Amino acid sequence: MSNEKNSQQLTHLNQQGEANMVDVSNKQTTIRTATAEGYIRMSAQTLALIDSGEHKKGDVFAVARIAGIQAAKKCSDLIPLCHPLMLTKVQVDFTLDKANNQVRVETLCRLSGQTGVEMEALTAASVACLTLFDMCKAVDPGMLIHGIRVLEKQGGKSGHWQSTNQGES
Amino acid sequence: MSNEKNSQQLTHLNQQGEANMVDVSNKQTTIRTATAEGYIRMSAQTLALIDSGEHKKGDVFAVARIAGIQAAKKCSDLIPLCHPLMLTKVQVDFTLDKANNQVRVETLCRLSGQTGVEMEALTAASVACLTLFDMCKAVDPGMLIHGIRVLEKQGGKSGHWQSTNQGES
Amino acid sequence: MSNEKNSQQLTHLNQQGEANMVDVSNKQTTIRTATAEGYIRMSAQTLALIDSGEHKKGDVFAVARIAGIQAAKKCSDLIPLCHPLMLTKVQVDFTLDKANNQVRVETLCRLSGQTGVEMEALTAASVACLTLFDMCKAVDPGMLIHGIRVLEKQGGKSGHWQSTNQGES
Amino acid sequence: MSNEKNSQQLTHLNQQGEANMVDVSNKQTTIRTATAEGYIRMSAQTLALIDSGEHKKGDVFAVARIAGIQAAKKCSDLIPLCHPLMLTKVQVDFTLDKANNQVRVETLCRLSGQTGVEMEALTAASVACLTLFDMCKAVDPGMLIHGIRVLEKQGGKSGHWQSTNQGES
Amino acid sequence: MSNEKNSQQLTHLNQQGEANMVDVSNKQTTIRTATAEGYIRMSAQTLALIDSGEHKKGDVFAVARIAGIQAAKKCSDLIPLCHPLMLTKVQVDFTLDKANNQVRVETLCRLSGQTGVEMEALTAASVACLTLFDMCKAVDPGMLIHGIRVLEKQGGKSGHWQSTNQGES
Amino acid sequence: MSNEKNSQQLTHLNQQGEANMVDVSNKQTTIRTATAEGYIRMSAQTLALIDSGEHKKGDVFAVARIAGIQAAKKCSDLIPLCHPLMLTKVQVDFTLDKANNQVRVETLCRLSGQTGVEMEALTAASVACLTLFDMCKAVDPGMLIHGIRVLEKQGGKSGHWQSTNQGES
Repeated sequence: MSNEKNSQQLTHLNQQGEANMVDVSNKQTTIRTATAEGYIRMSAQTLALIDSGEHKKGDVFAVARIAGIQAAKKCSDLIPLCHPLMLTKVQVDFTLDKANNQVRVETLCRLSGQTGVEMEALTAASVACLTLFDMCKAVDPGMLIHGIRVLEKQGGKSGHWQSTNQGES
Repeated sequence: MSNEKNSQQLTHLNQQGEANMVDVSNKQTTIRTATAEGYIRMSAQTLALIDSGEHKKGDVFAVARIAGIQAAKKCSDLIPLCHPLMLTKVQVDFTLDKANNQVRVETLCRLSGQTGVEMEALTAASVACLTLFDMCKAVDPGMLIHGIRVLEKQGGKSGHWQSTNQGES
Repeated sequence: MSNEKNSQQLTHLNQQGEANMVDVSNKQTTIRTATAEGYIRMSAQTLALIDSGEHKKGDVFAVARIAGIQAAKKCSDLIPLCHPLMLTKVQVDFTLDKANNQVRVETLCRLSGQTGVEMEALTAASVACLTLFDMCKAVDPGMLIHGIRVLEKQGGKSGHWQSTNQGES
Repeated sequence: MSNEKNSQQLTHLNQQGEANMVDVSNKQTTIRTATAEGYIRMSAQTLALIDSGEHKKGDVFAVARIAGIQAAKKCSDLIPLCHPLMLTKVQVDFTLDKANNQVRVETLCRLSGQTGVEMEALTAASVACLTLFDMCKAVDPGMLIHGIRVLEKQGGKSGHWQSTNQGES
Repeated sequence: MSNEKNSQQLTHLNQQGEANMVDVSNKQTTIRTATAEGYIRMSAQTLALIDSGEHKKGDVFAVARIAGIQAAKKCSDLIPLCHPLMLTKVQVDFTLDKANNQVRVETLCRLSGQTGVEMEALTAASVACLTLFDMCKAVDPGMLIHGIRVLEKQGGKSGHWQSTNQGES
Repeated sequence: MSNEKNSQQLTHLNQQGEANMVDVSNKQTTIRTATAEGYIRMSAQTLALIDSGEHKKGDVFAVARIAGIQAAKKCSDLIPLCHPLMLTKVQVDFTLDKANNQVRVETLCRLSGQTGVEMEALTAASVACLTLFDMCKAVDPGMLIHGIRVLEKQGGKSGHWQSTNQGES
């Protein structure tokens, strides 16, 4: 293992252990896509409040969707070593998982560019969950955000990557 | 339960189910504090890379700490129905939980103001975790962010609130 | 009239005609409220698309509402001589004016502070209209945004002010 | 007409009526230009204050011009479903229309990219008008912003588009 | 000296040497003012271009003034451990120092709040100088920004502070 | 010299002396790099506090490095006539110059784009210095930021440019 440890290194630190923004100037411009997910667990009662009637449900998820989309665009402002980039598509979808008293958020980010977009997809999922938390916190401050991870990544030198972990439930 | 459901309502939706920013104009100005936590689980090898030597560890956590602090300040820009406010203190601390191959982030936000700061503390924890993810993703894309929740809240009309859930491990 | 002209001056320019941010350090902290309105005129067909079914209507207005609320918070970042301030309430409402093929936006901003919030209300109305434009522009690029004005202002030294102009229709 | 209604759809909503950011990943990169205009109507006296001497006039319009340019760059942060993009030119021009007691703002945005820039041009016009409002509001709170529309659009799949509406006066 | 060294400590690091945002929750709300200055040295020819006629001069300084004012408002977004605050006044003034081929920027920031505003004043001076650099760089890329420092500070526990250093010239 | 004066003009002003964003739509996309430097002079005692032990030094410079990197990304938001662009690399390095009681900051920015990145490099250097000022100001309010200039520029039509001025010391 020590061998592997020696051969591996964090790309975001230089030899002196200082923060390092990876130079992507010479990376190829390709279409890159990433999907991510996240969950927010709440009481059955809170989930029912979100789910009571098309009307209410509409605006709760609409607000969280917009927050997720906007957060994906702000990713390089939030995460210091991320490169600024021009997303060509952001998608944020919600599903109610009543069996487990939670909402699942799935996000997709895409661009034609020189660097991957998994951080953008993760940021969209995180902020969408935080926005749901905000809207429900007065009735249920004990909610839990969990299961935030990358599902799949396409494009770029490293090619296709897919999570082999078991999803949350 | 239907009675409770009737008496309860999401404060962030109005009677028509539309997004609603709560009016805090007449809330009392008091010192309000909130603490939150979050976790990022990774491979043992990745955790070892973060932990190898004071030098490297320093900058990884320094970057994530700054990202968390800055994100707390941006909370009302990220979460649509949050009020803009002037934090007087943000703290972001990290501990290595080697037994469970994860890093724990604990955050504290405080202000003298008219509204609580738990969303700011949760946002700081989320973005600190996302920043750690970003710095380690080249070697470990399968990491998982989880356990993001409020630990404790003080100040304001609702007074003291403390999570009774069992922490993640 | 020349007398009045002499006695009047733009507060946002100094004696040399240079941009001047008004000093509000010694203004009283009071609750200040402003309401504003704006309109977007479109083809009857486009208005029908927005109005076809609760479902669609919900998200179109939800997106524009969130955009308006967020823009009110960003006002001092958009308008150079505006003071940063902490809004305690932002409200953005829409009504369909089918007789005139337009949507009316009415906004309200409030805070307890040292300066008025009419620019925040106007900014919310403008950006809500722009967001409606964005969502409908593929089918109707000839839309017109008009009638953006302050309706009423309360609080502060200048007291109550109400528009005496006739509304748009 | 009902046929047309069926065949037409808002591109910014998906089949479920949810907010939808259009995927421009495969759109062609071409030079795209858009021009827009907007007006702010005020009292004759206020217009005279703006117009009294080169000196004053200079800074009032300089401030509004900068605000318009900066707002164009922030467009994707203000309008939720707009794509982030890299403007290569923003222009904001003012003309005094003394006959109608108003200032006319004309804006131009350009880029080499995958999506049109009419929202950027409209945003620049709106924020330039709001900035003029801000600078004159102390003497004339009853001003009116109107006539905000796209004048012309070039580049991209839809080619050349020109407004056929009669301008405001 | 070693004694002094022991008794002194950087307030922005905690005992572990980690970044630390100072807690100002219990600091008194008073009116606080800070002034700062900065210089940009250029060729005589470039200075003449800025100074040639009221017209040109007007817009060069107007742009830099607005940039400085806006930067002061963004200070807590730029400098990680600065507290967000609500400036009640920002002023940015320019003087031509032809004898030394330079422009001098003097800034003033003020607020009624719990923390000093010298970083805001310094940020305004820095960004005003950077903006002048940007506007002149095509003809004079060898310009030098220097002499950025706090001139005077008033309000708060530490009371009045005035620089005893000799100014730049 | 008067001839040169006539032939030269500030690119950032139009013929009327109004602020002008240069149109780079037709500029070639090439890899462009710029390096810049800046200095902050302080008391020997303050420099010693920064330098006392790996631990402290780590976080002081880590915070300033992140601030510099983030500021480079925000350049077009800070400097009104700068174009938005997508940096592919930002680097911020610090060296202690004990002989002159100062810290030297050297920055590098790079992108594949249509416009140079010297303003981004200068902004990174300025904000890194401001951040060091912020962290040390409680013990040494009389510090001086100076020597901010472009060192070298590569790429684009104007080709290679290198400062011939003597560095600060």
